[in-house]
Amino acid sequence: MKDDLPFLFRQLTHGVYVIGVSGGGKDNAFTAAWVMQVSFSPPMIALSINPGHSSYRMLVESRAFSINVLPANRKDLAKHFGLPAETDKLAGVAWRRGETGVPLLNEAMAVFECEYSHECEAGDHRLVIGRVVAGSVLNPDEFPMNYRETGDMDASSGLYPDGFT
Amino acid sequence: MKDDLPFLFRQLTHGVYVIGVSGGGKDNAFTAAWVMQVSFSPPMIALSINPGHSSYRMLVESRAFSINVLPANRKDLAKHFGLPAETDKLAGVAWRRGETGVPLLNEAMAVFECEYSHECEAGDHRLVIGRVVAGSVLNPDEFPMNYRETGDMDASSGLYPDGFT
Repeated sequence: MKDDLPFLFRQLTHGVYVIGVSGGGKDNAFTAAWVMQVSFSPPMIALSINPGHSSYRMLVESRAFSINVLPANRKDLAKHFGLPAETDKLAGVAWRRGETGVPLLNEAMAVFECEYSHECEAGDHRLVIGRVVAGSVLNPDEFPMNYRETGDMDASSGLYPDGFT
Repeated sequence: MKDDLPFLFRQLTHGVYVIGVSGGGKDNAFTAAWVMQVSFSPPMIALSINPGHSSYRMLVESRAFSINVLPANRKDLAKHFGLPAETDKLAGVAWRRGETGVPLLNEAMAVFECEYSHECEAGDHRLVIGRVVAGSVLNPDEFPMNYRETGDMDASSGLYPDGFT
């Protein structure tokens, strides 16, 4: 029997975030789930990102990124910012520029701004480690979205190998 | 006003896991929340770990570690495996040895076995990246524990700096 890797990996717990980047005179934002805290002091966060996406190059160029925490009831935003980067996804969405220059979504329940620190290899992704230099909770009454609850909205089940080798 | 970093960082979503290691003829296991998937193919997971703890040295020596996913109703296990490493935490708990030699808890709802791949700096922690070589869902009817729901059980609120600098 083929190992059911998508089901197995769904037992790990991740949130759902919109990552904001600015580089080369452009702003962009994209949905990501692989975000976690990695250090208390200094406060640091790691983001695993597909290096084949244009947002990766923008992030490395801009030396900064925002992490916008989506509340549980905003799957529409998760879907919208999962669209291809060619789309101007920030048009028609309320946002402002943070102190590091990156986009912050007004409808996020919390925001973090990170300075790019360093990165390392991570299989088919790259792990970018950022130092958190600003952040605030915009809506303490909302509850963060759990990636598990988005089902296969990102079609990621097709990205796994057939089993362990 | 002092920035409330513990409350801000609680908006990030993490699970609760027991990490199993074997090294130097000893087995050990400890509670961790900073675990996330970082790659689809090969499937890889990152764990952020305090390099001052003895389990870090055991993990690097053993070249493998297990990730035991705790279900929401087992805060007792999260607390037990959060005890100091001097305690024989595996005594009195049902476990077996996985194919990589590391301890797997019978009461986990899912288990992963990782081979140590590489690591990188992460502030006051180290990010260990492991390649997942085995894993299974033991109880698909349970729901994974969310770190947010453990409150300040690990007393981590005292580990943050006073604010952003």
